[in-house]
Parts: sequence; C-alpha cells; structure tokens
Amino acid sequence: MEDRLEFGSDGSTTPTHWYNIVADLPERPPPARDPRTHQEASPGNAASVMAEALLAQDAATDRWIEIPDDVRRVYQHWRPSPLYRARRLERELGTPARIYYKYEGYNPTGSHKTNTAVPQAYYSAQEGTRRLVTDTGAGQWGAALAFACAQYDVACEVFWTGSSYDQKPYRRVLMEAFGARVHRSPSDATESGRKATANGDSQGSIGLAVSEAIEVAATNADTCYALGSGVGFVLLHQTVIGQEALAQFALAEDYPDVVISCVGGGSSLGGLGFPFLAQNIARGRETRVLAVEPTACPTLTRGRYAWDHVDQEGYTPLVKMYTLGHKFVPQPIHAGGLRYHGVSPLLSYVRHLGMVDAVARPQTECFAAGLRFARTEGILSAPESAHAIAAAIDEAERCTQTGAEKAILMLVTGHGQLDLAAYDSYLAGNLVDAELTDEQLASFLARLPAVRD
Amino acid sequence: MEDRLEFGSDGSTTPTHWYNIVADLPERPPPARDPRTHQEASPGNAASVMAEALLAQDAATDRWIEIPDDVRRVYQHWRPSPLYRARRLERELGTPARIYYKYEGYNPTGSHKTNTAVPQAYYSAQEGTRRLVTDTGAGQWGAALAFACAQYDVACEVFWTGSSYDQKPYRRVLMEAFGARVHRSPSDATESGRKATANGDSQGSIGLAVSEAIEVAATNADTCYALGSGVGFVLLHQTVIGQEALAQFALAEDYPDVVISCVGGGSSLGGLGFPFLAQNIARGRETRVLAVEPTACPTLTRGRYAWDHVDQEGYTPLVKMYTLGHKFVPQPIHAGGLRYHGVSPLLSYVRHLGMVDAVARPQTECFAAGLRFARTEGILSAPESAHAIAAAIDEAERCTQTGAEKAILMLVTGHGQLDLAAYDSYLAGNLVDAELTDEQLASFLARLPAVRD
Repeated sequence: MEDRLEFGSDGSTTPTHWYNIVADLPERPPPARDPRTHQEASPGNAASVMAEALLAQDAATDRWIEIPDDVRRVYQHWRPSPLYRARRLERELGTPARIYYKYEGYNPTGSHKTNTAVPQAYYSAQEGTRRLVTDTGAGQWGAALAFACAQYDVACEVFWTGSSYDQKPYRRVLMEAFGARVHRSPSDATESGRKATANGDSQGSIGLAVSEAIEVAATNADTCYALGSGVGFVLLHQTVIGQEALAQFALAEDYPDVVISCVGGGSSLGGLGFPFLAQNIARGRETRVLAVEPTACPTLTRGRYAWDHVDQEGYTPLVKMYTLGHKFVPQPIHAGGLRYHGVSPLLSYVRHLGMVDAVARPQTECFAAGLRFARTEGILSAPESAHAIAAAIDEAERCTQTGAEKAILMLVTGHGQLDLAAYDSYLAGNLVDAELTDEQLASFLARLPAVRD
Repeated sequence: MEDRLEFGSDGSTTPTHWYNIVADLPERPPPARDPRTHQEASPGNAASVMAEALLAQDAATDRWIEIPDDVRRVYQHWRPSPLYRARRLERELGTPARIYYKYEGYNPTGSHKTNTAVPQAYYSAQEGTRRLVTDTGAGQWGAALAFACAQYDVACEVFWTGSSYDQKPYRRVLMEAFGARVHRSPSDATESGRKATANGDSQGSIGLAVSEAIEVAATNADTCYALGSGVGFVLLHQTVIGQEALAQFALAEDYPDVVISCVGGGSSLGGLGFPFLAQNIARGRETRVLAVEPTACPTLTRGRYAWDHVDQEGYTPLVKMYTLGHKFVPQPIHAGGLRYHGVSPLLSYVRHLGMVDAVARPQTECFAAGLRFARTEGILSAPESAHAIAAAIDEAERCTQTGAEKAILMLVTGHGQLDLAAYDSYLAGNLVDAELTDEQLASFLARLPAVRD
C-alpha cells in the first residue's frame, strides 16, 4: 500500500453531495431564540444578511444535499485532500496502532476553511450579491473567503479584530493579494466601529468585528454576511472531508476505530466526524469521534449545555450550545481558532446525545506534539491541528500499553507556515499553560442568561 | 476534461527515473577548472565534502538514472504535483491560447526545492553521513533541506546570509521546527565566519555562507555539503517535474508549444524543460523552452558565456557559464532566489547550444502578473514564479493578436505565503524597477577572470 491514498480514477474524485447529519438525529437541534423575548427567533434578521440557499441548507432535513457543479469544479483544484499513513510517527512511537492523517493544508489558503468559503461565495454570487463581508479572528477564515470571492467575482470585505490585525500583517497581505479589503476593527466604516472607538476601545474583539460586518450587510442591499464556523451549513460543507476519508479508507482496506479533530467552532470535527457517525448509525460501525480542545478554553469538557449568546456583547440570538458563558475570555493561547466560548449548536446537540467524546490538552503539549509530527511526517501543522495530533499520540501510546491494534485517524486542518511566531515562542521556551480554576469557570457560568427550556 | 490533471491509477504516479540530458548533448558541458592553475579541477575537494552518489550522478552520461524506492516513497507524499488548466486566466485575457501551469507549492516546504533535498539527504544517509550543512539565500532551500534531513534522520545545519536571516525570522523558525540548526552568517562556528566578523562584516553574503558551510563539511568526517541549485545533479532531480507534465499532457490530449520557468541557478527551468527538450530531440517535437529572469539580474539575456567563479570571493573552481561576473551584485529585488550572477553550467551549455530561449522582466510587472494570477487562478505564487507568469501572459497576449492557438505551460515553483512582505511593498507602491545600464554591466564583465578556452 502507498502511504498516500487517492480516490480511484472512475471520475468520482470529490463527493457529489454534502452529508446532513440532521436527517439522522432524533430531532432537529433546538432553533435559535430571540435575545429579548426568549421565544423562537424569526428568520427575518438572518434572512436579510445571508444567502437564501445557505439558510435553506441550515433548515434542511434531507440527508444529502447536492454540491453544485461550479463548486465541485473549484474543489477539484485541491480535493480530494490526501489521506496519509503516518508510518514514521508509528515507528517512533513503537505503537501497534495504525495512524492515519487527512491533510487540509494543500489548498490556496492552507486550511480547511476554503471548503465552506467556496460554496458561500458561489451561492451569494448566484443570488446577485455583489459583496460578502465577514469577521475574522485568527485570519485563516478571512484569507479563505478572500480567495473564494475572487473565484466568483464577488467583492470581499473583512473586519479583523484590531489586536490580531496588528500582530499578523502578513495574513492581511494574503487577503489583499486576493483582492479583499481588510478593515482593522474597530473601524471608521460602521456606526458600531465609530461608537467603540469613541468609547476608547482600540483593540476590538470578535464580537465587535461581527457587529461591524453584520451592520454593513444589513445596510447594503447588494451585500451579504459570511461565516467561517459555528452554523449548520458550515459543518455541512466540511463533510467533504469525512466522506473522502471514508472512500480512502476503503481503498486502504482499513477502517478507523477513532477519528480525531480539534474544536473551536466545531466545523473541522463536524466535517470529519459526521460521515463516520452516519456509518455508525446506518451500518452499526462503532467509530469513536473525539473532539480535542485547549485546556485554556474547555467548552465541551467543562462547559454547560445551555442557552447563550453567540457574541460577547449579547446582541445576537440565543442558541443552545456547550458554552463557558459569553463573557468568557480565554488566555491568549496561540491556537487562535480555538479561543471561542461556545461550540456550534449542531455539534453541541450531537455531543449532548452522547455521539461525540471530548478531551482537553494544554498548548505546550500540543506544540511538542506538532514538532514531533513535523520531524517524523514532514508537515508543520497549524497550532489548532496540533491539538488533534497530541490526542492521537496519546491514543497510540495507550495502544502500546494495551497491545490494541487500533486504526486512528486525525485531521490536520492546515499548515503552520503563517503561525511560525507561535512555534518560535514555544521553541524559545516562552509559552506557559494557563490553568482555568473551578472558581473562575463558575463565575463565567453564573453570568449565563436565564432561559427556560 | 477536468481542470486538474492527475496520472492514471496504474501505479506509475511518479516517474521511476530521473532524465539526464547530458546523454542527448553533443558533448559533456566543459568540466570545472582549478581557480589558480586554470587546468581541469581534480574532484578531490568536492569528493571530500559531497556524497559519492551525487558526484557520480554529476559525471554520469546515462540517459536514465533510477530513483531509489526510498526517495520515491517520500516523493509520493506530494507527487505528482498537479497540472492545471488556467481557464479563468484565459477567459480574463480573452486569449485563444490554452494556458497550463504545473504547481510545486503543495509540499511540506512549499517550493520545488524539496525535489532535490530529498535525494541529497537520502544518499548522504546511505553513505553514513550524520550531518548535512548548507547555505541559503532566500531561505526556501534551507527549509527544504531541513525537512528532508528529518525524513532520513540526518542532522541539518544551515548557514544563512545575515541580512536575510534578520529580515525573515519566520523562515528560520520553519527550519528549526524540522529540527535544523540555523546559523546567522557570518557565524562564530567557523574560521571563515570569525575572520569576516573580525574584518567588520556583519551582513554576510551568499559567498561567505558557502565558505562557512564547506568549511564545516571539510573539517568533519561525518558531515557533507548540500546544494540547492546550479550543479548538474540538482537539475537532474528536478526532471520529475517535466516528466510528470509530459504524462499529464498526454492525459489532456494536448502538447505544449512553449514551456516557461524562471531562472536563478536554473534548477526549475532545467527540471521542467529538459524532458521536453528530450522529446524535441527524439521525436522531432518543437517545443520552445523559455527562461525568464529579472531585468535586475539579466544573466542569460545580457551576460556572457565565459569562465567564472561560482562565489563572489573567487575561491571556488571556475566553471563555464552565462554570467554577469562574480563581482556582480544585483539590486535588492524581492525574488531572492533569482539574484545570482551566474546560471548552472549545464543549463548554460544547453542555452549556448541554442536549445533554450530567454527573456527578462522587471519585478513590478512580475508582481502585477502574480496578483492577476492569484485573483483568477486562486494561487499566490512566490515572487520568483511570478516571472514565469508574466512571460506566459505576454505569450498569451501575443496569441490574442495573432490568433495563434498555442498551448503554453508555465511552472509555478512555489507559494508566496512566506513572501507576503514583498507583496505588501508592491501593493503599497513602494517597489521600483532598477535599470542596469550598459556601463554598469560592462564594468562587472571587465572583471571576469582571463581564462583560455
């Protein structure tokens, strides 16, 4: 067997449909609620700023949703993403486990975010939208959307949290190279931005960047809002990852006992894990789906399944999700994509049903695992992905102890070539692991809104 | 036809042999000469610092040289590299030409340098070498070698020109992440480095970095020296690129009228172009092989085919090559990989025989072409590769004028995600094109060593 597994040459190199796990759940996840009335939110607000096709996907209960040809055409530039057998890592660990990884770094912006950026830009263009606006935290999502918008001749504007914007000038250039306009948030371009600046806020926050982006979408008829994670249609689009992995495992004549990804908003874990859960449901498979989060932001392992706001300001609708409380501000760890107080409501519901396990890992352990992976497998992963690597190594080491010959699949969501400052800090010994005490956590959870189920 | 072309599934996903163009030339390229006696240099010095297998490849006249299984195993992690049809670029140009590009950015360090780093590390490990040392200018080669050494458990040390080391801390971290030790040159680790520092040199040069690396290799029995470009075996290893392109064109039922790559040392052009020259020779094809260099460093278009030193200090053997004179220092353009006074002796000889054409392009035109390519095809290329893109666009626009339906193939040697500062300068309007006057050029050429043919 080759170490790199591709699809066969029968033409089906990428999946033709996205997999909608909602079809296989006992009920739909609880819909969003109005932040003032606590009643089910009307779709009015969302409808005015989002593409209709995407909202329809979010509400869909069909098991399979067709991928438009013009999206598949763009996907095919880098999909299927490779699935590798990690033979050198296995050898170094001396494990009886078979370790596989699927790698989402070989695409135009180097992370799995491109998988949802492309359909979001496509549907918006189809509906006559001339411009997409979004917010970005770590910057990977902004770059992916900038790329995708250029593919469909849609303008792109990105509101980027001031502190990250200042720290990462090069990611801004990547977005600009694709033709996007990047605003440092708080910006002068919106009412919310000007108000924040007037109130002395210069660093911004994800919540504020969201407000700025939504304001632009709401006040311009030709403009829609795009999202990089969290919502159902994003997880739906990412299911190309898990579907390809299934086909690649079939080629390898193997099947994973456990599949692992990191969790921030939840799109990479959903994308990898849901197609395997479908096999558990339909074919009695017993693959364990494992989410890995940072100990600094332990939403699934120590958070509560409760109604909460999506943003820190509390302006947005309430959703039922695993959360640390919307006022939670994690330590400034380097896996910026994992610093979110909640998790996608869809993934949260699946977790609530007991279909997904979760563990937390401290960032220094993850960087150590990331370097071990780079030196054996040759790929320097994003700090986010290093969380999955750390958990996969743990799993393989348990196999060494027990002698279990498990097949382990981890998702490497992107490359780390735009995160080298973080690896530099780790190599220089400047990173520490912040402990979140029970008292701290309780104080955030105490500020959850009181909503009756 | 799909936009992305892969090999078939018959198992031959990567070539089994490298192509040695020497077998198809009327004579061997003139061998190197001793810098003092001007007589043919003895292999003594080189033999003591380089792997025997590589020196044997450099001297070989066989047409095909087998790629070891353990090198192909690593190649297969990212090879075959994709060949794409540039349909969106074609559409924007409104050209009757068919434009294709082969992309070498989807691999662990993001450039074509990995193709030679892997066999160099492999053969060195086979011969019992415990450590490889090298010099790097732009940093891409250092990263590629660091990756490759980790694959074969060989230590890696990189001497990096001080000015680049200071400007690009993140590339250093990439090398360190793979386990390499990176020295800022001039360093304290060598006699040459200490001497340079004592003489007040703090910025270093490629020539000095070469001297430091060779000194370490020469004074340590377990250590060999590795090279990223210029020598014959490097061009040999890169022929996987052109061979794959040939097979991919066969799948597409098309054939290129012109193949284009940038030229610094010459390895990417040789790697892409030589297999097409083989077809010209053996099968009467008439593909034009076009080299593109910066107007700031116009070695093939305005230089002389003459005996010259490889390094600026004049310590190294004399080779017959196209050169601007070893004292030539180009303007600090951003395509660092193209700022070399000479060109590979093998490629120079092939050019001297009239088998390769050359053009020069100013850097601002190349950055403009790079951005146009990013916004249509979705890939932000390295500044080096943008030279090939600029020339391909010229060629396509000529087709628009003449109506010629040519097939154009360009090589995109790597991604530009570690070159974003350069794009930032261009986008901010801070880049200028330096003109090299005839007088300036004549003064450098006047300092060529006087060697009788």
